[in-house]
Amino acid sequence: MSTIETMSHPWTFQSSSDFLSTGTIIALTVFFSLLCACIVVGHLLETNRWANESTTALLLGLGAGAVVLLVYKGNSSKILVFDEDLFFLYLLPPIIFNAGFQVKKKQFFKNFTIILMFGILGTVISFCLISLCAFLLFKKIGVTSLSTQDFLAVGAILSATDSVCTLQVLNQDETPFLYSVIFGEGVVNDATSIVLYNAVQSIDMDNIDALISLKLLGTFLYLFFSSTLLGIAAGLLSAFIIKTLYFGRHSTDREVALMIIMAYLSYMLAELLNLSGILTIFFCGIVMSHYTWHNVTQSSRTTTKHAFATMSFIAETFIFLYVGMDALDIDKWKASSASAGTFVAVSSTLFALVLVGRAAFVYPLANFINCIQRQDSSNIEFRQQFIMWWAGLMRGAVTIALSYNQFSSSEKKDSALMITCTIIVVLFSTVVFGSMTKPLIEAVLLRHAKPNVSDAVDSPRLEDLRILLIDNGGENQPAAAAQRSSLSLLLTHPTWTVHYFWRKFDDRFMRPVFGGRGFVPFVPTSPTGAADEA
Amino acid sequence: MSTIETMSHPWTFQSSSDFLSTGTIIALTVFFSLLCACIVVGHLLETNRWANESTTALLLGLGAGAVVLLVYKGNSSKILVFDEDLFFLYLLPPIIFNAGFQVKKKQFFKNFTIILMFGILGTVISFCLISLCAFLLFKKIGVTSLSTQDFLAVGAILSATDSVCTLQVLNQDETPFLYSVIFGEGVVNDATSIVLYNAVQSIDMDNIDALISLKLLGTFLYLFFSSTLLGIAAGLLSAFIIKTLYFGRHSTDREVALMIIMAYLSYMLAELLNLSGILTIFFCGIVMSHYTWHNVTQSSRTTTKHAFATMSFIAETFIFLYVGMDALDIDKWKASSASAGTFVAVSSTLFALVLVGRAAFVYPLANFINCIQRQDSSNIEFRQQFIMWWAGLMRGAVTIALSYNQFSSSEKKDSALMITCTIIVVLFSTVVFGSMTKPLIEAVLLRHAKPNVSDAVDSPRLEDLRILLIDNGGENQPAAAAQRSSLSLLLTHPTWTVHYFWRKFDDRFMRPVFGGRGFVPFVPTSPTGAADEA
Repeated sequence: MSTIETMSHPWTFQSSSDFLSTGTIIALTVFFSLLCACIVVGHLLETNRWANESTTALLLGLGAGAVVLLVYKGNSSKILVFDEDLFFLYLLPPIIFNAGFQVKKKQFFKNFTIILMFGILGTVISFCLISLCAFLLFKKIGVTSLSTQDFLAVGAILSATDSVCTLQVLNQDETPFLYSVIFGEGVVNDATSIVLYNAVQSIDMDNIDALISLKLLGTFLYLFFSSTLLGIAAGLLSAFIIKTLYFGRHSTDREVALMIIMAYLSYMLAELLNLSGILTIFFCGIVMSHYTWHNVTQSSRTTTKHAFATMSFIAETFIFLYVGMDALDIDKWKASSASAGTFVAVSSTLFALVLVGRAAFVYPLANFINCIQRQDSSNIEFRQQFIMWWAGLMRGAVTIALSYNQFSSSEKKDSALMITCTIIVVLFSTVVFGSMTKPLIEAVLLRHAKPNVSDAVDSPRLEDLRILLIDNGGENQPAAAAQRSSLSLLLTHPTWTVHYFWRKFDDRFMRPVFGGRGFVPFVPTSPTGAADEA
Repeated sequence: MSTIETMSHPWTFQSSSDFLSTGTIIALTVFFSLLCACIVVGHLLETNRWANESTTALLLGLGAGAVVLLVYKGNSSKILVFDEDLFFLYLLPPIIFNAGFQVKKKQFFKNFTIILMFGILGTVISFCLISLCAFLLFKKIGVTSLSTQDFLAVGAILSATDSVCTLQVLNQDETPFLYSVIFGEGVVNDATSIVLYNAVQSIDMDNIDALISLKLLGTFLYLFFSSTLLGIAAGLLSAFIIKTLYFGRHSTDREVALMIIMAYLSYMLAELLNLSGILTIFFCGIVMSHYTWHNVTQSSRTTTKHAFATMSFIAETFIFLYVGMDALDIDKWKASSASAGTFVAVSSTLFALVLVGRAAFVYPLANFINCIQRQDSSNIEFRQQFIMWWAGLMRGAVTIALSYNQFSSSEKKDSALMITCTIIVVLFSTVVFGSMTKPLIEAVLLRHAKPNVSDAVDSPRLEDLRILLIDNGGENQPAAAAQRSSLSLLLTHPTWTVHYFWRKFDDRFMRPVFGGRGFVPFVPTSPTGAADEA
């Protein structure tokens, strides 16, 4: 496997050592210098509401690509070839793992139903709509060489939202409800669109019938549950090993190493078993932050919390730099012999499809959820629906990776055109939408200073529930009445009741085996807290 | 560049996703499972004085290689091909950087002269002796196809000691003098032997004269000083940037990311400029722990300290696993058509040369140092000389990487033989000598409970010096007398006087610009301390 393929280039540097290839060293030096620049520039622009790290990295990458193009006198802009292995094996796992490790678990599980609806059903709706519209529209603007399979692939490719960019523009503390829903949807969406894409590759286009869609649904459910279970198992195993062997006794570094390696191993195992590595490592991160993180020494806690965030940060910045530099790849632009008019037409069509495809499920699903939730207080307001639509419009590295996979080895006339147009959509959506999201959220949500209903704690608190349940038992009422009371609670406040029983189960059976807060000396910090920053 | 090349193999796994190569995933899964096993087994064997992490990893790698050999029915034992790029670009830098970051600076600089003598002069002596003896002996045991250039390369290859393994068997707190000398020598030795190896590659063998050895010396001095300066500059730049921009204000993760990336960038820059990346990143680590580390937030300090150690730990374990798995590579063994007798003869000759080559400089140089140091108290005792000789006998990944580079593409009859014999020497020295070092040190040094003179603080303490110097000024003696007093101090206690004036310079000019302890809020920990482990 080649992770970073370098181009043969005309520079006449002397080989640095006899055993290191100069091309690789130049490429790595350029990339790491740009990473440094990104960090410093991103830091200086921190207070600027229009800028964010993704946009900065993308623009710096574009700039560097332009410089390389000048140095090569327009012959090539590449010093690195975009490689799917590099992306899926080394850059995506730390980002998704850290997301699971730092996510606010209570919020995430409270909105779990909404997240699943948006992530699975929403992505499927978007996939169908984009595929169908592309099929109908593209012939009219002169793109004739694509097959039905290609159009279905385009649907899957453009349905993959960019959860990385979302993380940077939304704030977990200011808008917890939106953050957990949009981000959670992003993770499930990643998995769904990759599953859809793989399904499209394997379907025999000549024999489509109703059974196939049922089979697809079955495959998806199998993937979803087994990936989740694998992630949970890996997380629990790490917690058990570290708790039982008491690693901190000798070395805090071994604890940290074991956490990183077991998380990565869960991703690799999932990929080996044809499951979704993204879902697996996400749930592994959640379980690790709930159990394993509490079993390690205080230094390991601080270290893992910040080291995982740093790894994720570097990987994110690297991806956007990469995409930026790759966008100016002159060979690709030359290969697509289409006219400027066709470029504009295809790109704007794809872009419009992204907008419509997302609107087609966000508004209907949100209103459907509002209908079945009887409490007025937890309705998703129109303003929030708008932000949910907007924040999922960005397309990122998953889109580019899938697009390369579909079209780069294809001999069809319009393949190069499809790749370049995908890149245009990614660049435009990330730069324009990415930089507008922060001001937009401020304008739409935060200036309406009325406290946001869905984000407020309007449901009965856990303590109230416990008192209620204990009171029921304490007054020696018949068991049936107590049971009926629990049942009615489950019906009126389903999420909180599930949470209450989960907590009881967790304290009784899980924590004694796997550790966790309260079963190791209490320390008043958590991966999401900031108590040790002082 | 291909970092991890996978073999095409006969297993019939279904491709995990359509865009990830199954071979890579299998290889990574196997490797990361073995890494987990190494950590757990290494932890369980922690109290065993015969075992250490290197030996465990090497034996586990051998075992895994044997299993793969059985699965392939003896056709191949490879799932990964040893790749010099992977080693020199990704595994070696974190190890050497962490060594610089955690080294006890005072001890290191106190013994700087000894370290340089052993690392440079000693390596050259060992190189000459091994080359000469190999040239004279190999023809007698039937190895006839090697050229003069090959013999010189063998000298350079076998002069590269394994500083990684040394770090694991010596303890910085128990034997600070030995640790700093042997480890410091290892770092300088790495640089020297790689420089020698590169010099051997570029020398025109037909026109050797006295000028060439002078030129080599000049090249070496240039490399040594410019590499060191580059490392110091990179470290100071990181300190300046972080101090000036005050990164901690926004994000602790950016500080950590910047430190990692700038350290790595210094290594890449050094390689790009044909300098020694190892020396550069080592000094970058020292400067970062002296200045940069004090400019970051408390969480960043804990994080960097443990994250760097963890990265180094993973890289070390990975290298030994790799070497272990690679040793059973059946193709290489088949390629060397020599008889078992020749194998034994060549391996034991090489091994004897390693023993003699090291003895030939350790004992003479140590006694020479004893002669010129007038104080009896700081003599290097014979017991210490023995440990210095012994601890540098292990050969590791640098030896294997150089050996591959020299012989793997060569068409000569005995090339494959040389590679396999080098591997035998590495395996034998690491497993046997590595596991015997810890008990040996206990037996030779620590049981003789008499406090070790060189390790005791027998030189005048810094405070005494300061009082002496202040008193000289305070009593209003003429300036000439005070100057003479400093001068006589410099002659009697050169290291401590240099240290004193360095401290004054540091406090007056360096720390106000680059930060450091005392110029940021005082926190009672240091990268080498363990105060935050509680």
